[in-house]
Amino acid sequence: MRFGFDIGGTNIAAGIIDESNRLIAKDSVRFPRGEGNAAVIEACAGLYHRICDQAAIPEQEIIGVGVAVPGSVSPHDGVVIDAHNLGFHHTPLAALLSDALKKPVALINDADAATLAEHRIGTLKGAKTAMLITIGTGIGGGLILNGDLFRGGRNNGTEPGHMVLRNGGRHCSCGIDGCAETYCSATRLGKDGAVFRKPTAKEVIEAAKQGDKQALALFKEYIDDFGSYIASIVNLLDPERIAIGGGVSGAGSFLLDPLRADAEKKCFFETCPEIVIASAGNDAGIIGAGLIVS
Amino acid sequence: MRFGFDIGGTNIAAGIIDESNRLIAKDSVRFPRGEGNAAVIEACAGLYHRICDQAAIPEQEIIGVGVAVPGSVSPHDGVVIDAHNLGFHHTPLAALLSDALKKPVALINDADAATLAEHRIGTLKGAKTAMLITIGTGIGGGLILNGDLFRGGRNNGTEPGHMVLRNGGRHCSCGIDGCAETYCSATRLGKDGAVFRKPTAKEVIEAAKQGDKQALALFKEYIDDFGSYIASIVNLLDPERIAIGGGVSGAGSFLLDPLRADAEKKCFFETCPEIVIASAGNDAGIIGAGLIVS
Repeated sequence: MRFGFDIGGTNIAAGIIDESNRLIAKDSVRFPRGEGNAAVIEACAGLYHRICDQAAIPEQEIIGVGVAVPGSVSPHDGVVIDAHNLGFHHTPLAALLSDALKKPVALINDADAATLAEHRIGTLKGAKTAMLITIGTGIGGGLILNGDLFRGGRNNGTEPGHMVLRNGGRHCSCGIDGCAETYCSATRLGKDGAVFRKPTAKEVIEAAKQGDKQALALFKEYIDDFGSYIASIVNLLDPERIAIGGGVSGAGSFLLDPLRADAEKKCFFETCPEIVIASAGNDAGIIGAGLIVS
Repeated sequence: MRFGFDIGGTNIAAGIIDESNRLIAKDSVRFPRGEGNAAVIEACAGLYHRICDQAAIPEQEIIGVGVAVPGSVSPHDGVVIDAHNLGFHHTPLAALLSDALKKPVALINDADAATLAEHRIGTLKGAKTAMLITIGTGIGGGLILNGDLFRGGRNNGTEPGHMVLRNGGRHCSCGIDGCAETYCSATRLGKDGAVFRKPTAKEVIEAAKQGDKQALALFKEYIDDFGSYIASIVNLLDPERIAIGGGVSGAGSFLLDPLRADAEKKCFFETCPEIVIASAGNDAGIIGAGLIVS
């Protein structure tokens, strides 16, 4: 059995993964924001003991613990380099948590964890070259290269939301004007939708489905941006498959059908790779964290 | 000894590579445009015999032949899928040339050949994750991933010039509006420079060096586009090193210094990878072709 944590700025979710990579027990607690590292470790340890207890799994059966965090990690020494939302900066999280749980602890970026889960149990299964793109408040994602998770050429991971899609365009918090994130995230749909009183991606998509003209026009522009973004990745890496996850992917074929058509038009190669909706779901972070335990 | 061909739409260049990956003899002939496949094979065979003859290298010492072509190839069956400028479409070039030369023949895309040469004997030597970007009439390039040439996830290679940099912008011949190629190629500098009677990249750069205000303004805009293009690649792949080749790279530090500064500003990670001028030179295609002979 392996144990996975998915630590977010709002909640800490965690669970137990069995030998078939199934999540057999899970639970969550509030992230103790602003209370310091000791409080985070205490919250994690409490959650760990509770989940094992409730699932009636003796802790000696847990061979190790994986932790997904929203930020950059140094996998080799178990240090969180920077996870802004968690208040971690050069924090030796693996050592701290290992001390508390008496188990080996490994770290992974949360988007990488989701990508790993998608590759082992989801729609990217079997692919040698593939990508997960997660569309939410921002854009996250991860790459599978040579059949394995790619953690970046210098171990910095990947930041696909900060590829430039409209150079000189909308200002991104990262400093670039025109990042993909400012055009393809859920935030963009909500921001542009607010003008006609549809201030969330969900409301824009719902209105577009109902035939609302303003919502349809915005959605069409969004698809043009998203299709070009996918074409950028396809023309560089020629992947076999691209999975779309995150809130906006809930739109299903209403998103997927026009997106495929647009990307196909812009793909340089004879055929466009498969574009699918991610299937590993909300627990992908926990599962992916558990999967890095060796 | 290995033999490499670099077949272009104007010339066929070729040479012999020794065991230390050095080009020890080379020559070229005009590409017999529009004269059919048999004429191309004849031109290649003539060049092959002449180079071996002039270098006094017995043909039995050549263990194999590599061929670089500007287009998509299927390495496994030795077929050129499409090389528009050469008039090759689903052409079994390896078999045809192997018949004529009585040697094993392998194919590679020309940008991939240049990347391989840059990785073995040039500025990308030793890198596990790196990229060559060639700035000429268009944009070519290739990727080194996991210490080896990456031929695309579906064996289509990479088309980095057709990443989208300004979605909805200048129309590219590939069909997308806003490809990197339409903003970062030498062609862009010449096209925009023509307005003030500097119709080539070379003239624009020369005028900018002399302090010409219009040329400097254009060059500044070019650097902003090129820097964003590099930031896109860096933020996706986090490479160790990026080498810039092709005609525009001849500008040296006049290009490199502002480009590094711009890319550094836009790089998401703490540090930007090294950006260098490619060193394998004009013969990189021949050398890279020779290097695929096993």
